[in-house]
Amino acid sequence: MNWIYALDLIGTLVFAISGVLTAIDKKFDLVGSIIIGAVTAIGGGTIRDLLIGETPVGWMKDSNYFYVIILAVFISYLFKNKIQIFRRGMFLFDTIGIGLFTILGLQKTLNLELSIPVALIMGVVSAVFGGVIRDVLTNEIPLIFRKEIYASACLLGGVVFIILESFSTLTNANMIASMVVVVVIRYLSVKRKWSLRI
Amino acid sequence: MNWIYALDLIGTLVFAISGVLTAIDKKFDLVGSIIIGAVTAIGGGTIRDLLIGETPVGWMKDSNYFYVIILAVFISYLFKNKIQIFRRGMFLFDTIGIGLFTILGLQKTLNLELSIPVALIMGVVSAVFGGVIRDVLTNEIPLIFRKEIYASACLLGGVVFIILESFSTLTNANMIASMVVVVVIRYLSVKRKWSLRI
Amino acid sequence: MNWIYALDLIGTLVFAISGVLTAIDKKFDLVGSIIIGAVTAIGGGTIRDLLIGETPVGWMKDSNYFYVIILAVFISYLFKNKIQIFRRGMFLFDTIGIGLFTILGLQKTLNLELSIPVALIMGVVSAVFGGVIRDVLTNEIPLIFRKEIYASACLLGGVVFIILESFSTLTNANMIASMVVVVVIRYLSVKRKWSLRI
Repeated sequence: MNWIYALDLIGTLVFAISGVLTAIDKKFDLVGSIIIGAVTAIGGGTIRDLLIGETPVGWMKDSNYFYVIILAVFISYLFKNKIQIFRRGMFLFDTIGIGLFTILGLQKTLNLELSIPVALIMGVVSAVFGGVIRDVLTNEIPLIFRKEIYASACLLGGVVFIILESFSTLTNANMIASMVVVVVIRYLSVKRKWSLRI
Repeated sequence: MNWIYALDLIGTLVFAISGVLTAIDKKFDLVGSIIIGAVTAIGGGTIRDLLIGETPVGWMKDSNYFYVIILAVFISYLFKNKIQIFRRGMFLFDTIGIGLFTILGLQKTLNLELSIPVALIMGVVSAVFGGVIRDVLTNEIPLIFRKEIYASACLLGGVVFIILESFSTLTNANMIASMVVVVVIRYLSVKRKWSLRI
Repeated sequence: MNWIYALDLIGTLVFAISGVLTAIDKKFDLVGSIIIGAVTAIGGGTIRDLLIGETPVGWMKDSNYFYVIILAVFISYLFKNKIQIFRRGMFLFDTIGIGLFTILGLQKTLNLELSIPVALIMGVVSAVFGGVIRDVLTNEIPLIFRKEIYASACLLGGVVFIILESFSTLTNANMIASMVVVVVIRYLSVKRKWSLRI
């Protein structure tokens, strides 16, 4: 298991926990919580796979994603009253998660010989549409449309990755650098309450 | 026309009627009602087909599904004030419907050599996501996330089917037994107000 | 660049502007506005392509759609307070747009050897589901379900096109005639407040 796969699963776990906690907050029952946790975690990648025509979609071929989502459900119900304690750690892994999902989605799309703008969009879709589906299913206006630098941080991270890849073959280092860009921008934007409202 | 196909069409009819009635209730116009009836009836199977990569999706290849949906629209408008009378019969067929849709979705997924957990999920998706889309389009929080043993009854029926298939080749009998499981669990859960809230 | 492609891009532009304006109205930030503009413009065609199995979906293969959406974002922010002036022109192009999208979606589906009813549905889906996704993402009940002859105008235009094609090979003329049907019906229905509420 390499570090990319490990981060992918940790990102999935954190996304799923955030989904389950939202569902518990909305008084959903157990099944509803599992569904919301799952779509939050794998919804973005699923939409990307549908759009680029990679079916059966990715998570169908690797059962680790299920185990991670089931684990997320357990963790969420066990610690639902104490989850505040982990919020800082979750924020970090959530942001590493969207950074990683952006780069993985981008690479997968480029491998299909699609254009760079399409690959950037698919990267952002992979990272943020899980949360969009979660918000639609819980009858909220998607958060990313209104607050925080979130999709834009992903987009910028993707652009940085494309630029680095164009003159360096150290893909692992390029990925880490791009993810750091996503984390730093998002951290600063939350800290300083940046917004893109015009 | 075998009994499976007949039940499939009856399930589709009942799902479509429930969609059209929801739309009428929400003051939708005729076109809106037809669309809501159609997505309720065929939305779950459509999402399953998209996810497993079976496109063009199923209903495009069999026009009987249209006729059934059009029939549902007629029935709904004709009897919209008297539909309470049929509610008990509709509940029965709706529940037989989700049971059947679960098993059919499950079989279709297994035929593509996908894993049993994926097949179970696709079974449940086939059965319940039509209703989820209906609720999203009518701006409601999906009912199945909050009330009743619904998705879980489907899941259990699917598990029973998998177990029966593993030691009996009487597929028809296995299907009927699994559907009975779904109907009984759902009936009892509504009757006794079971819930999975933790 | 032929006239069909030109109209397709203009229709995309107008759809995208209408999406961005909705987003601005809802206090979305820049990224949210771009996403809503994009899904309004290309959401209908995307769903059609997914359902008929044409992936990667259409807009991934032609970057002009991006440029048009970016242009729509600029226009919307520049003229957001004066857009009322253009409302009449936008209504016209929006209606030409849905007419054209209906016929293009219909033709694309027929080329895959799918049936005429399926092709008509895919035509209507191409034309109206972008707006449906916009409404779902902004947490509104989709407008087309409740007001105006909109989907029905598309459907009728599609039927007219099928009939004309059955006895005339002048496809361009048939397209124009069908689009005129859509425009006239929609114009009259808005003017005279027609509705299909039963």
